[in-house]
Formats: sequence, C-alpha cells, structure tokens
Amino acid sequence: MTFDAMWADLQPVGRDRRSGGYRRFAWTAEDGALREWFTGEAAGRGLDVVPDRAGNLWAWWGDPDADGPGLVVGSHLDSVPDGGAFDGPLGVVSALAALDVLRARGWTPSRPLGIAVFSDEEGARFGVACAGSRIITGALDPDRARSLTDADGTTVAEAMAAAGHDPVQVGPDQTTLARVGTFVELHVEQGRALVDAPDEAAVGVASAIWPHGRWRLDLRGRADHAGTTRLEDRDDPMLHLAEAITAARRAAGEHDALATIGKLRVEPGGVNAIPSRITAWLDARGPVEADVRAVVAAVGAAAGSEPVEESWTGSTAFDAGLRDRLAALLAAPVLPTGAGHDAGILSAAGIPAAMLFVRNPTGVSHSPEEHAEPADCHRGVEALARVVEELG
Amino acid sequence: MTFDAMWADLQPVGRDRRSGGYRRFAWTAEDGALREWFTGEAAGRGLDVVPDRAGNLWAWWGDPDADGPGLVVGSHLDSVPDGGAFDGPLGVVSALAALDVLRARGWTPSRPLGIAVFSDEEGARFGVACAGSRIITGALDPDRARSLTDADGTTVAEAMAAAGHDPVQVGPDQTTLARVGTFVELHVEQGRALVDAPDEAAVGVASAIWPHGRWRLDLRGRADHAGTTRLEDRDDPMLHLAEAITAARRAAGEHDALATIGKLRVEPGGVNAIPSRITAWLDARGPVEADVRAVVAAVGAAAGSEPVEESWTGSTAFDAGLRDRLAALLAAPVLPTGAGHDAGILSAAGIPAAMLFVRNPTGVSHSPEEHAEPADCHRGVEALARVVEELG
Repeated sequence: MTFDAMWADLQPVGRDRRSGGYRRFAWTAEDGALREWFTGEAAGRGLDVVPDRAGNLWAWWGDPDADGPGLVVGSHLDSVPDGGAFDGPLGVVSALAALDVLRARGWTPSRPLGIAVFSDEEGARFGVACAGSRIITGALDPDRARSLTDADGTTVAEAMAAAGHDPVQVGPDQTTLARVGTFVELHVEQGRALVDAPDEAAVGVASAIWPHGRWRLDLRGRADHAGTTRLEDRDDPMLHLAEAITAARRAAGEHDALATIGKLRVEPGGVNAIPSRITAWLDARGPVEADVRAVVAAVGAAAGSEPVEESWTGSTAFDAGLRDRLAALLAAPVLPTGAGHDAGILSAAGIPAAMLFVRNPTGVSHSPEEHAEPADCHRGVEALARVVEELG
Repeated sequence: MTFDAMWADLQPVGRDRRSGGYRRFAWTAEDGALREWFTGEAAGRGLDVVPDRAGNLWAWWGDPDADGPGLVVGSHLDSVPDGGAFDGPLGVVSALAALDVLRARGWTPSRPLGIAVFSDEEGARFGVACAGSRIITGALDPDRARSLTDADGTTVAEAMAAAGHDPVQVGPDQTTLARVGTFVELHVEQGRALVDAPDEAAVGVASAIWPHGRWRLDLRGRADHAGTTRLEDRDDPMLHLAEAITAARRAAGEHDALATIGKLRVEPGGVNAIPSRITAWLDARGPVEADVRAVVAAVGAAAGSEPVEESWTGSTAFDAGLRDRLAALLAAPVLPTGAGHDAGILSAAGIPAAMLFVRNPTGVSHSPEEHAEPADCHRGVEALARVVEELG
C-alpha cells in the first residue's frame, strides 16, 4: 500500500529530537516543507494544487467549476507543540492512498474528486484553531485573522507573506466553497470509544462535535522583590492562577464538561520577582453549551478576572443522512467528539460533511505518544476508499 | 553632584520600552555596554580596571598588591527581567560619586581604595544569583558555573567567551580576594523599614542577610488532548502546580518566612494540550533556616515532587564591629534584609563587609516602579563618602 511509503516520508519533518513530538506550525519552514510534499504527491498523481484565499490547498481530479461540486476528502498537516504524527497527516496520507487504491482497481469518479489540506488547523502558533476553514467560511474576520500574533509578535499577515501567500487575499471564499459538494475527513481517534467498544471496530463515524472554545485570563498583580516583600504587602497573581486551575477541574467535574489550562505566560518571569502579570488560556468543552459556559464563568469568578473569549464554536451535528449512510456502509459505530475539526467548520457553513475516526489504542493525542496501529491505518484507507467509491 | 550626570547616562541602557523596566542580563550586549561605561568612568578618574577570574571588575586607586589590602566599595549593574533602575547601579554610581566628593575635598586615602562591579548578581539569565562573587570565593564550583544554561541553551562558558572573557579562567581567585581588606556595598532598600522607621532616616546599615535559596520543582504528567481526554484519564501536572502555589503561601505564613513562585515553564505549552511537564522555581527565605527548610518541604509534599536545590545561602551576619561603627558614624538605623547580595557572599568568605541601604518610598523592588528620591540618593552618596573617609 502506498500509505506506508508516504508515512515514512513525513516522519522526519518537524520532529523535535528531544521530545520525539512534532512542531509543525502554520507558515513556518516546516509547514512549507509539508505543503511542498503534498504538492509533489498531487502532481505525481496528475492533480494540480490550487490554494484558496486562506492558503488551504485543494488538489482536484476533474474540474469542479465545469462539472459541478465534487466530493472532497482530506485533513491538515500542522501540529500542536510536541504533537503526535497522526493528528492531521493521517487524513491527508489516507486520502492520497485511497485514491491510489481506487485507481488500481480501475475506478473513475462520477463527479470531481478533491483532496484538501487545511492551513493552521491547530492554531498552535496564532491561537485560533481551524483558522484556514474559518477564514474561507467567514467564521473568522479577515482583519482579525491577519492581525493575530505569535509569541514573537509576528502577525499572520507577516508570516503568510514570508511564506509566499499574499495576506491581502485573506477572507471568505465562495468560489472555493461552491466546489465542495461533500466533505469527508478521516482522523485518528482522540479518545477510547473504539478501543472500549463492545464490538471490534477499527473505524468509527462521527455524530457531532461538542461545543468548545478558548478563553484568555489576564491576571494582574504588582512585580516586587521575592526576598523583601512581606506576604501582606504582596499582590501576587500566582495565587489567582492557583484558584483558576483548581476551579477549572472542579467545575468541569460538576458540569460534565472538560476544562484545561495548558498554556501560561508569566511576566516578568524572574525566580526572585513576584509576577506583575500572568496570562492563562482556558480550553473548555462539553456535550452541552450551558455547562461549558458555566465552567468558564466559575473559573473567571475564582480567578477574579473576566475570561476573554478568543474563539467559540457551537455544537456541530454532522449531516444525519450522510452519517447514517457511512455507518451502514462501513458497519461502523457512531461516536461524538470533543475535538474541533475543519469538517465541523464546513458543516456549520452548510456543507454536508462527515468524519471517520481510526482507532487509537491508548486514546492519547496531542502528544508524542499518540498512535494508531499500521493495520488500523490500512483499514482506515480501505474504509475511506469505500466511502469515496460510494459518494464519488 | 556628578551622581546626576552618571545616573542620566545609564537611564537608556537595556530599558524595555513596553514595560519601562530594565533587561540587563549577564554577558549580553547590554551588559557589555554597562561594563564599557564603568571602564570609561574609571579611566576618567585615573583608575585602571582589572577583571578577575569571574569577570567582576575592580578599579583601584593605589596598589593593593604593594600597599596591602584596601577598602572596596561597589555593587552590580545587571538586573532582573523588567527590573528597576536602582537595584545594583545605585551602589556603583554612588561609589564613583563618593570618590568625586572626597577628591573635591582634597582627601586622599591612607590605604588603596577600590570600586567593584560584580558580574551576574541577579542570576536572571543563568539561574544562580551572585554568580560573580560565588565563583571567586569558591562558593560556586567552576565546572557548574561554566555549564549553567540560559533559556536558549547557551552556557555561561559560551556567553562569556562571546563577550570576550575567557571561561577557562573561571574559578576561586585568592589573588583578587587578598586585595580586599573591607567591602562596603550601598544598595537601594527593598522593603519599607526606613520609610516606616519612627525617626526620619534616608540611609540604614544592614545587620544580616536572611538564609535564602532557590529550588526547582519538576512536575511530570502526560500530554494529551484537552478536548477528548476524560477527567479521570488525565495526568495533568497543572493541578500539582496549583497545590504547590497554595502550599507555598500557606507554609510561608505559618513559618514566618517568604516563599515565591515567579518563574514557570509549561511543556508543550499548547492551549489544547494537557501539559506533559511543568517546571516551577521556588524562592524561599526567612529569618530562621529551619523555617525556610520547612516551607520548602511543605511545597514539595503538596506538589508531590522533591524540590531540587539550585542554590542556598545560609544566614549571613555582617561584621558586628563594622556594622556598629558605621551605624554610629551615620546615626543610622540597623536593619536585616531578605535579599542576597555580593556583600553577603564576601562576608561569608571571611572578608569584613557592610551594607548601606538607601530609603525606598514604596519598598517596591525588582519592578519598573522601584524608586528612590534624588535627595535620598544624594544623602546615600554623602553617607558613603563619610564611610570611605572613616575606613579608607
């Protein structure tokens, strides 16, 4: 299967030697290498790659402008800091491999077939996840998108321009969206529903994406000398951080939701200086929006700081007819997920979309330990090929 | 007074425009500019500057090798991140200005007079405070000193070499120490003892430096996806951090000590990733060593991680005779401090040492808001001149 060779090609790109995880951030040299790799793979299959206004890449077999909207499969190639190899690339490599499987069988599509690579799905560098799909669907304002900054103060506009993508183009892209009749994203599962399922299943079908968002907590205090300032004279934001962390876990448990603080910035950051300011980011999700909102409010109250919403995505149910058709076709279980995906953004924009999940033996994701067995990856390719055959 | 002109010269060096604080870290370009400034000021007064094995600078009036050990005054020029203008430079500028005051009066010393600038007092870049004085007194092992790294992985040896100081020299320096008969360091006060004192006093004399140290907490967990990992499946070190912060404040209050967590490193540091590892630094001090040790143990127990001692300095009482003589000479109050200083390191190495503190109207230090009134700075120079006259 061509899957294995492509998988091996991607292994070294953006891998951090110390952690063993990946650092493939939007509009970096690593991101450029991955885009080049994809363009080469598409060209080798006779497909031209067309970037859209957000820099997402689309490789078409057939002409969707002439022959009506097509079926699109794909995912993303970027990663979280020290992420795993599978989250994103599994969907792109499986899409290319499924095409090879079908062509080897002599199959030709009845409508145009596209393979998509979305930009900056993780939001690891600029803070907004699914930035590429949000931009083209209008869910992310172009001016805000361009002005997002990374930790070094570089804006999206600057980073895009440096990578050769004109940031002036950034904005809603109806031309691109009109080409997409149906979108199917294959992805490594990021939980244990398949492993824990009563019947053996290597592939599942998504029912819905939980409502989820990111909030920023600005905790202010007063910098002062750690060795000479009496406890009663201190205004130390670190204490508010401790309250926020504790409240996040407690409230998530009470409201049947998930809450995580995974990124912090401490200023000035000296061992012997009481911090003047701490910025903490809260990720909160759950099956019910009101519960997620309650968790965020509880964290804000505990921290003594109103959380600033940086992104929010409401509950996204995938197209019910498509979901049931794929579940029946593959005899696959149907499962919800707490993770956001480009398929969810397209679905919210009115494009029939579906997701396939490939079993993850530990459920661990966003970690160097993220894994899927090679045999399960191959079953994912077979399942995706059957879906393309069915819908294409 | 020459103080004001020198003070104005130093204002722009290493100032961060955003915070208004200083970023003058050891062996950087800013540090080099400050060393050059000092060498120029010394040369303008006919004093040659001699670096020692750690790169501390010594400007001598007279020859301590020929005429016996001398009196040395001085301090340091480096800062914490976003530190104030006074911590360090006040002592160096006051030393030069005191020399000018005495020379204008036609005074000449009866023994050699030195002005010293110590390297890397704050330890802001490489983590060990008073590195320059610790190296020459043997309190910091030369191999450990050379191999300390900054946040970018640059070692002290590399940084020194890049700044033109041969790191092979680093080590105990008896030749330099033998030249120092007495050391007096003037410093901005880092608390409110003088402001709150019943009798008006712009200058105080130090009695002792509290025992103090720095510890590292390595909090381990497992990176995982923030949106898909059930609360019960998580191993999130952020919760241990919250326990450590809370315990630090509680234990400090119980044991009449100070404890601060002012620096953190979160890995991988993604908004949607449960951290795999958090490194937190604990600064703890207090009048009684056993109490400080009890605080550190309580924090370790709460965090579930044995604190790693990165530095420790036992209680340092300054020379009692010298202290009483200066307090009487200046009619100045005597006060203890929780801050470590090079004068404390020299005192612990057997050199008679004393400190003068200049009043700080808010007590705030290690912050852009650190301040001393110009009139109090001038009184500090006068006080130091009287001390030099008395001891020199």
